[in-house]
Amino acid sequence: MFTPIKSTKVYEHVIVQIENMIMDGTLKRGDKLPSERELVDNFKVSRTSIREALRALQVIGLIDSRQGEGNFIKQSFEDSLFEPLSIIFMLQGGKPEEIMEVRKIIEVKTAAIAAEKINDEQLSNLEKLANAFKTSKDEKDNVELDKQFHYQIAQVTENFLIKNILNSMSFLMDSFLKEARSKILVDKGNLSVLAAQHIKICEAIKNHDAAMASEEMKKHLDFTDKYIRNNM
Amino acid sequence: MFTPIKSTKVYEHVIVQIENMIMDGTLKRGDKLPSERELVDNFKVSRTSIREALRALQVIGLIDSRQGEGNFIKQSFEDSLFEPLSIIFMLQGGKPEEIMEVRKIIEVKTAAIAAEKINDEQLSNLEKLANAFKTSKDEKDNVELDKQFHYQIAQVTENFLIKNILNSMSFLMDSFLKEARSKILVDKGNLSVLAAQHIKICEAIKNHDAAMASEEMKKHLDFTDKYIRNNM
Repeated sequence: MFTPIKSTKVYEHVIVQIENMIMDGTLKRGDKLPSERELVDNFKVSRTSIREALRALQVIGLIDSRQGEGNFIKQSFEDSLFEPLSIIFMLQGGKPEEIMEVRKIIEVKTAAIAAEKINDEQLSNLEKLANAFKTSKDEKDNVELDKQFHYQIAQVTENFLIKNILNSMSFLMDSFLKEARSKILVDKGNLSVLAAQHIKICEAIKNHDAAMASEEMKKHLDFTDKYIRNNM
Repeated sequence: MFTPIKSTKVYEHVIVQIENMIMDGTLKRGDKLPSERELVDNFKVSRTSIREALRALQVIGLIDSRQGEGNFIKQSFEDSLFEPLSIIFMLQGGKPEEIMEVRKIIEVKTAAIAAEKINDEQLSNLEKLANAFKTSKDEKDNVELDKQFHYQIAQVTENFLIKNILNSMSFLMDSFLKEARSKILVDKGNLSVLAAQHIKICEAIKNHDAAMASEEMKKHLDFTDKYIRNNM
């Protein structure tokens, strides 16, 4: 199970070995890692190196440290990877248009997939979100309802990568377009346009009309994109 | 510039503060971080916490540690984030079809964008890659030429996120579909089909025919996808 390590960047090798145990199926979601002491004994490295490796895995979002219980491979990774991507995007001099371009490419297609694959429960949830967005007067609620509407459509794909990528885009929008994102929802005129667009997307999906769902999603994101560009 | 920290999970706060310095532009690509000693003094935390934070930032791929020189914000992030995404994808029980679905969604569209935006230098490079793939007899070279062909198309978008996402998908294919990926290139019959598909994509892009570029890319990825499904 373990291979003793000889090297200079010791903690990196500890991480690679733990990652390998995940890749070959030895460690699974929710599994408890060996204790710090056991890791020290098995890997033949210092306690400091083990702790550095464990901290790094925590920060990456791969493991959870529970006081008095030990370290566990996380059960859910829905939130993972957000921070580094946004930081790196920022350092690269990333532009908000790039976020909207990715959203358009993926969501125009996920709307079509949703029209083909959506089940009754998912559809009823989507309709509830579209209706709540239409009637809600609270700005913060609206931001949340809008996110959930788009996320519900992504969920229909049952594709972890698509959900993960769109979550990252949503996080990036929060980081870089916070003002524009709430500004668009303050203006009552916009709000009714956006609400109507959500309803149309929802109807196309309900009618299993993939082409129409794509078209309505494209209109919706073009409108949002244009507003953001004019209000940055 | 610095705010002293009082908390239990000390290293996390150190990371957040360093991230904030990036977000507000205090730290830029290639910048040297303050020394461990300065960070200890400024953040009022232990050297251990500072080291844990720095190690974690290294593992995330945000900083480079250079022996005797100190820690630097990385210059390039093209390779970042691969490891965690692939590990998390694995833990989620991710399926190879999900990778191909993302590639299809994005690359069918990037082919169209390339047809609209490609410049002479990029086009000449793309043609070289398509021709080299057609004539090369070496399996390893072919894998590399195929990757570069797809990456050159993505580069035309000048969208960091798109390039980053497609790089991640390529890394995931290497991890999960290594055998299928080279198997498809060993069979001489396949090789000539794939080479002809690359040439057709290239021609559509050269003719600035966005619809045709998308269509040819779709055919190409459908063919690859089908082969992978039948040979897993």
